[in-house]
Amino acid sequence: MINAGIIGVTGYAGEELLDILLRHPNVRITDISAKLQGPEEISEIFPKLKGRIELICKKPDLKETVSKCDLVFLALPHTVSMGMVPLLMKAGKRVIDLSADYRLKDTKIYEKFYNTKHKDKLNLPQAIYGLPELYRTKIKNAKLIANPGCYPTVSVLALAPLAAFNLIELDSIIIDAKSGVTGAGRKIVEGFLFSEVNEDFKAYKVNAHQHAPEINQELSKLGGRKISVTFVPHLLPVNRGILATIYVKKAQSAKRKAQNLLDLYKKFYKKEPFVRIRDEGDFPRLKDVVRTNFCDIGIKDSADSIIVIAAIDNLLKGASGQAVQNMNIMYGFPEYAALL
Amino acid sequence: MINAGIIGVTGYAGEELLDILLRHPNVRITDISAKLQGPEEISEIFPKLKGRIELICKKPDLKETVSKCDLVFLALPHTVSMGMVPLLMKAGKRVIDLSADYRLKDTKIYEKFYNTKHKDKLNLPQAIYGLPELYRTKIKNAKLIANPGCYPTVSVLALAPLAAFNLIELDSIIIDAKSGVTGAGRKIVEGFLFSEVNEDFKAYKVNAHQHAPEINQELSKLGGRKISVTFVPHLLPVNRGILATIYVKKAQSAKRKAQNLLDLYKKFYKKEPFVRIRDEGDFPRLKDVVRTNFCDIGIKDSADSIIVIAAIDNLLKGASGQAVQNMNIMYGFPEYAALL
Amino acid sequence: MINAGIIGVTGYAGEELLDILLRHPNVRITDISAKLQGPEEISEIFPKLKGRIELICKKPDLKETVSKCDLVFLALPHTVSMGMVPLLMKAGKRVIDLSADYRLKDTKIYEKFYNTKHKDKLNLPQAIYGLPELYRTKIKNAKLIANPGCYPTVSVLALAPLAAFNLIELDSIIIDAKSGVTGAGRKIVEGFLFSEVNEDFKAYKVNAHQHAPEINQELSKLGGRKISVTFVPHLLPVNRGILATIYVKKAQSAKRKAQNLLDLYKKFYKKEPFVRIRDEGDFPRLKDVVRTNFCDIGIKDSADSIIVIAAIDNLLKGASGQAVQNMNIMYGFPEYAALL
Amino acid sequence: MINAGIIGVTGYAGEELLDILLRHPNVRITDISAKLQGPEEISEIFPKLKGRIELICKKPDLKETVSKCDLVFLALPHTVSMGMVPLLMKAGKRVIDLSADYRLKDTKIYEKFYNTKHKDKLNLPQAIYGLPELYRTKIKNAKLIANPGCYPTVSVLALAPLAAFNLIELDSIIIDAKSGVTGAGRKIVEGFLFSEVNEDFKAYKVNAHQHAPEINQELSKLGGRKISVTFVPHLLPVNRGILATIYVKKAQSAKRKAQNLLDLYKKFYKKEPFVRIRDEGDFPRLKDVVRTNFCDIGIKDSADSIIVIAAIDNLLKGASGQAVQNMNIMYGFPEYAALL
Repeated sequence: MINAGIIGVTGYAGEELLDILLRHPNVRITDISAKLQGPEEISEIFPKLKGRIELICKKPDLKETVSKCDLVFLALPHTVSMGMVPLLMKAGKRVIDLSADYRLKDTKIYEKFYNTKHKDKLNLPQAIYGLPELYRTKIKNAKLIANPGCYPTVSVLALAPLAAFNLIELDSIIIDAKSGVTGAGRKIVEGFLFSEVNEDFKAYKVNAHQHAPEINQELSKLGGRKISVTFVPHLLPVNRGILATIYVKKAQSAKRKAQNLLDLYKKFYKKEPFVRIRDEGDFPRLKDVVRTNFCDIGIKDSADSIIVIAAIDNLLKGASGQAVQNMNIMYGFPEYAALL
Repeated sequence: MINAGIIGVTGYAGEELLDILLRHPNVRITDISAKLQGPEEISEIFPKLKGRIELICKKPDLKETVSKCDLVFLALPHTVSMGMVPLLMKAGKRVIDLSADYRLKDTKIYEKFYNTKHKDKLNLPQAIYGLPELYRTKIKNAKLIANPGCYPTVSVLALAPLAAFNLIELDSIIIDAKSGVTGAGRKIVEGFLFSEVNEDFKAYKVNAHQHAPEINQELSKLGGRKISVTFVPHLLPVNRGILATIYVKKAQSAKRKAQNLLDLYKKFYKKEPFVRIRDEGDFPRLKDVVRTNFCDIGIKDSADSIIVIAAIDNLLKGASGQAVQNMNIMYGFPEYAALL
Repeated sequence: MINAGIIGVTGYAGEELLDILLRHPNVRITDISAKLQGPEEISEIFPKLKGRIELICKKPDLKETVSKCDLVFLALPHTVSMGMVPLLMKAGKRVIDLSADYRLKDTKIYEKFYNTKHKDKLNLPQAIYGLPELYRTKIKNAKLIANPGCYPTVSVLALAPLAAFNLIELDSIIIDAKSGVTGAGRKIVEGFLFSEVNEDFKAYKVNAHQHAPEINQELSKLGGRKISVTFVPHLLPVNRGILATIYVKKAQSAKRKAQNLLDLYKKFYKKEPFVRIRDEGDFPRLKDVVRTNFCDIGIKDSADSIIVIAAIDNLLKGASGQAVQNMNIMYGFPEYAALL
Repeated sequence: MINAGIIGVTGYAGEELLDILLRHPNVRITDISAKLQGPEEISEIFPKLKGRIELICKKPDLKETVSKCDLVFLALPHTVSMGMVPLLMKAGKRVIDLSADYRLKDTKIYEKFYNTKHKDKLNLPQAIYGLPELYRTKIKNAKLIANPGCYPTVSVLALAPLAAFNLIELDSIIIDAKSGVTGAGRKIVEGFLFSEVNEDFKAYKVNAHQHAPEINQELSKLGGRKISVTFVPHLLPVNRGILATIYVKKAQSAKRKAQNLLDLYKKFYKKEPFVRIRDEGDFPRLKDVVRTNFCDIGIKDSADSIIVIAAIDNLLKGASGQAVQNMNIMYGFPEYAALL
């Protein structure tokens, strides 16, 4: 049994984390905080939690958090996390950061895409990118987890086998991704008002989204060469879920050998509890993964090109579910605990 | 051909007004303004208007408006309108005010429900409540129209025949109303974010909504006695439309004579171009009225009580459509011009 | 550990049941069936279940069900259930029937509202109405549970304290209810197509819904006199959830004593794990209860009348969640097992 | 003033056509029919039309249609149209067919994708593909218009300038398209039920959709060489609108000359009343085109590749609006009549 805290519990990711941890047999939630006017009973903020938890949510107070928790989840906006991590690390706490602050190893890229100086170059090198399918061993002993972004999670899982086995042409990767609205967090701006989003659909940050370098970093590592994807995200009028339709050209070498891609994917993810490969001609839809921690992947293999369609719940496998999966690995709990 | 201006053109009601007036054969839109940082081409603000209109939207400048317009529509938040009306009236302009500022004849009630002093008691008495079905003759010569609220429009039209003929019990009226999200205007608050409203439904301002006194004022006038309704509005996860389900008890006298209520309603609204009475057993749904200026009414008549179900588009018959209907009456244009 | 079967597993209620039972520590799902062309892996039918369950779904075969199960859930259309119950009862199985077939004690009323003869008058008398808040003791030993309808669950829970203590006027009860689309089951008719329901809202079966007699039966029992409600259901463009706005007039006696209704409700439901009473001025919204087994109730108390607003998830407290709650009571499992 | 008929008026496209034609100053609707049990007042079928039209809708009777109409719109399922066109053509009527039956010049391809023999090879050659931006002159004198599909309309308009000027690599075209649900017509199947589509999103007919050959036919004509696109359609949980995100690689020649693509597009569509090119960095969203007949196009030009994002309303520019645009051209009416 561990004591866990959540800083930023009132955002969508924080709220989801709380919901998962309440069902976790090995976790005691001992500290929750958020940007608030003053202390408030969490079940006042989220009436759906009445009868399930009694706990006061306060403004963040790192000293108190340190004194009460073994593990701290940071469900904070980008750039806020790295102001808190140094103190938590110093105090010997383990930290799972859901923001982007520790994901990009190259601070120049971080600073360009997030428009701010990186303030914690000390801890950055030891941060482990929390994608269990690629880094499970390192996650076990990690002190600091950089929990992956939602788009990178689905994109990297969808492309990892192709990148790892060098089956595709450099720079041919096109990721057309569609995300539900909670992907943007609980941001109070006109663009996210109901009457603006409902019955609408649009692309945004066309090939200029901050998750592209994260995808590039991980695919490049897998492929052993610099990979740069074309990435166009779209805003779906649904609460939750990401579906990515991915188009790649086969490498010349791959065209020659008639490899069964489905077999390749199934083998690659054989032992993974949260990746499911669809049979031929079968593709995932949002419904199949929403409110689950699964990433579902379907593949259409043609002579020259491959279409991969993958889906996750952006708040679960794309954020809080994956954070708990990482916690389960770190503490030796069953990997699926509280996630099925 | 008249010259019309819209102040507050970027809200939902203003945007809708613009859309209607662009199709009006007798109207030239000569001046549009709104709360903006600086002047902007209106088709930059609303790209859907590209190719349909070229006009600069500026910050409100009443002098300019006066010099350019015969008629001015005020699509402004409550309390802002009454700061502008005096000058416009003085300049001899005709004004259709879509806010609540000139609807309530009793300023004490206004001040209680809108939480502010009434600042224009001079012009208030001459303001005509712009419900054509009740005040068409007065509207013709009106200088200043107080365009009705959306809930009052549907509620008063649904109940007018019953109130006028004294068929119902005093204080038995229960109005359970459900409105789409544009009813609240383009307010940027957490409660109207997509992920908050989508897949949700709730009552709000339970029997404490500012439209209740407006309904009471009009029904009391019709009935010749003080009527006070029970009014509970709800927020529907749709963009447009209001449906009100209304429950009343019959007066003793009404129970005795076996009157055909459908006939009564059909006669009452016989000459009305925008009120449609449904046949027995048939009730309106939002779809029947959304994007039209119609108010559809269905009636279920029982021994002791009556259920009336009525629907309108909150942005059309409930706001901008009715404003144009009023303009058509004021200027002797066909009443349905630009509204079919 | 018990062996449970679900007949009708492919409807919305059956699907939800399966999902809950998969998380239940004391239940082994041993038999699932539905109206199918032929046997099919359940995870082929519901790909979201892949990796969570391997079980073949077949056409119903009662002999096989009897041989494999201790308890059988019937998630079937009305009138189909009563064709199966006799055999299951004879075989000594316990049955929880989610259809309406055993809810109404008066078969004349059943036959009028469901337009069919009642075929199992033998077992009807021993069927227990599965509303734990009213019948927990009887449920414990029940052989056959008539699981309540969704509208009756929320309506009866919302009104039970008022009816039980005779605080309200006979025949003054108005229930204006709004339900998400899964309430109608997976019926393939034009009226439930996406483009028909989306952005629409309507009343249906105005004061003629088959759930009204069920509500009347239970309230009459509580009040010790014949109560007949006015009941108007509406179709909400959301997947799940029911919100009922209920209007009642106080009885003369109730007006005299200044009773605190909130206290009354809180006391009445004190020990109930799944009923939550809101504080003054606070009312439930769908979001608070969707994907939970809770019924949330808010009350607005005035001099002469009371407004009660109550909400449930129609597939959980309104169907499958309540069915599992009943099972938990029948077998002495913790009442909230698999339901939090 | 012409007399027009609509066969198939109760589908989404037929309903929309009726709505447009009712506003058309030069059209008298003289005959409407559909698959019905018996004759029915059209305003009984669509209550929103009450007070706007009185006309009986009957089962199709070609003789009557011939006797009453100058022009006939066929808003019918694929394969039904070609059973009616021969008789209408023989009778000297002009026909605008909204189905796919006369779009594909190669009947082998038609028969493969629509799974049926082509039954009217006589009239097929004279059918004009009704995309005004490409075939305006031919449309003027056409007897028979094959009104384009919704996906082909948006895709061909988005790519025409690039194909016509040979700026892109053969076979590099990837069209990731997303359509609202009315795109599929009023089909009563489980997959289009509200609770199935709402909060869901999915790809379908992955690179196997029947609109792909239509796109290929038109782009090949424009490019003067065989072009075969990768086309993946998706189902959006909205009523109306298509947005296509299109990825192409530049031809070597195009990379050398630094051409301004926006200028190219603006010049190409200079005189088109219903194509709008967005400025740099600006992309269309559904909202900008829904309930309009416009096709909006935005372009992102990079060194090696181009992203084109285009949007239309599937029921207007993608079906009935374009049909009326074609009619306007055929009869010399203002091209925008009833379409603004």
